[in-house]
Amino acid sequence: MEMVERALGGDRLSLSRLITLVETDQRAARPALQELYPHTGRARIVGITGSPGVGKSTLVDRLIQSFRAGGRTVGVIAVDPSSPFTGGALLGDRVRMAERTLDPGVFIRSLATRGSLGGLSRATGDVIKVLDACGFDVIIVETVGTGQAEVDIIGLAHTTVVVVVPGLGDDIQAIKAGILEIADVFAINKADLPGHQRTVAEIEMMLDLGQGQRDWRPPLVATIARDGTGVDELRRRIDEHYEYLTTTGRLAERQRALVEREIVELVTRSLADGALGSAREGGWLADLISAAARRETTPFEAAEKIVQAWLARSGK
Amino acid sequence: MEMVERALGGDRLSLSRLITLVETDQRAARPALQELYPHTGRARIVGITGSPGVGKSTLVDRLIQSFRAGGRTVGVIAVDPSSPFTGGALLGDRVRMAERTLDPGVFIRSLATRGSLGGLSRATGDVIKVLDACGFDVIIVETVGTGQAEVDIIGLAHTTVVVVVPGLGDDIQAIKAGILEIADVFAINKADLPGHQRTVAEIEMMLDLGQGQRDWRPPLVATIARDGTGVDELRRRIDEHYEYLTTTGRLAERQRALVEREIVELVTRSLADGALGSAREGGWLADLISAAARRETTPFEAAEKIVQAWLARSGK
Repeated sequence: MEMVERALGGDRLSLSRLITLVETDQRAARPALQELYPHTGRARIVGITGSPGVGKSTLVDRLIQSFRAGGRTVGVIAVDPSSPFTGGALLGDRVRMAERTLDPGVFIRSLATRGSLGGLSRATGDVIKVLDACGFDVIIVETVGTGQAEVDIIGLAHTTVVVVVPGLGDDIQAIKAGILEIADVFAINKADLPGHQRTVAEIEMMLDLGQGQRDWRPPLVATIARDGTGVDELRRRIDEHYEYLTTTGRLAERQRALVEREIVELVTRSLADGALGSAREGGWLADLISAAARRETTPFEAAEKIVQAWLARSGK
Repeated sequence: MEMVERALGGDRLSLSRLITLVETDQRAARPALQELYPHTGRARIVGITGSPGVGKSTLVDRLIQSFRAGGRTVGVIAVDPSSPFTGGALLGDRVRMAERTLDPGVFIRSLATRGSLGGLSRATGDVIKVLDACGFDVIIVETVGTGQAEVDIIGLAHTTVVVVVPGLGDDIQAIKAGILEIADVFAINKADLPGHQRTVAEIEMMLDLGQGQRDWRPPLVATIARDGTGVDELRRRIDEHYEYLTTTGRLAERQRALVEREIVELVTRSLADGALGSAREGGWLADLISAAARRETTPFEAAEKIVQAWLARSGK
């Protein structure tokens, strides 16, 4: 496919169009993704997550500079899984970052919810593949919050940086509610605010409690994204985590787990779309729903009928 | 099944055992759920959600009293989708409520995450069916927060009450991030705290902005769960919303949508389990994952092979 060849060759416009295709029409994008796939698997994927207002975008901006100073190219995917109500903020932040896109070693793209949250996680995975195949050394995935969609998205990263700020009690809450398990590195941003030491102590305490069998203890890095303080150290810690993944064989494990997850999702979607699509077109999905809603049949029996009819039809 | 007959006949111990079965072993519970299903569809399902600390449990406790004063029986399912780290709080709250369970017209059960979040939403749906079939007039589903799992769970309710407290900026954030769309009634709890009027004004403003095509405007009820203030009005508003659903035909729509969602999930899981289980047992799922991880094949091709092999095998 010409668009793919051009994007692989470094053409920015083709890369942009390819991402739009991948984002908007999964079926049409499949041949392109097939062609790209053998070129993937080389990029280092870094997730950055944290509550709104902790300064993620500025920190990402600074991290880009730090990676660029070391000669590495950087792709950024900014994902906002929240409702359209808050969709504006992230795009606003991106305007500030746009100046960086004059650098051909940097590519920034925002993804917002289109329909299902599962779809957003899928699209993020596919955009990562495009950037990976096109040779970006580092891919930063930035996302907000701690919901299931965000956890799914951040699960695509090799290294996850959780950004918190001092004195926000609800950040600690967010950490408790699942983020502790996904953090490989903590950035305590706005480290010049009062309460910094207390936040550090609280997180260290939670790490002490939750450590158990883990052999990587997430380091805490004090940063002030506004003026760049601590950002090079944060970048070094990210690199150290990648080293750790590589030398312990966990990187290979993680890559395998991601491939498995993708195959499982593709199999699941393909079969479900096939069986349900066939039942929908035949008009009997609606009939079965009505019958179950009237309690004349059960959802189990209805599902079983759909599965059997599909298998009988497809196995020929 | 004897356990089912006894539970339908009002035996508490059988009801309890039935719920444990449904919660822990979906496959083994299927015959029981099949038998119960024709008895379902009569209960009114009320969801109660909000951030930790807004007083949901006390409010639920008061709502139980209000429904009981009107002669209605009440089942409560308290769901905590957060990580094991915070799992304790909810159970502690329940101890306080336990005294109410001496009333045979009240049944309370906590559900916590076991494995996948999707599994929790499925279990909640099945426990609702058990309580519905066993004749509880009102089923209250209480859950924390705004993640996808919570939205899925709250989607099982006919009427959703969102509980907020004055002066919590992050509550407004939570509302913005999706909860506005799911609220049918707002309870502004701890209404004696400073900032009450401001919270009311903020929510009213958001409702003004987001109203658009909706023909039900969520009412705001000021409550003080601690002393019971406003709880009867809250109960009336919940009843009014149910009236609205019934008279506009939306209740039937909603019931149909729930049945459809359940059939779709059952079909999807049945097919995916079949195809992936077969590939796993045959040992070639692992081979395909390895090949895709080495970039010798693509996830699309691997998925396609699994699907085709399964269809060829099952269609015979």
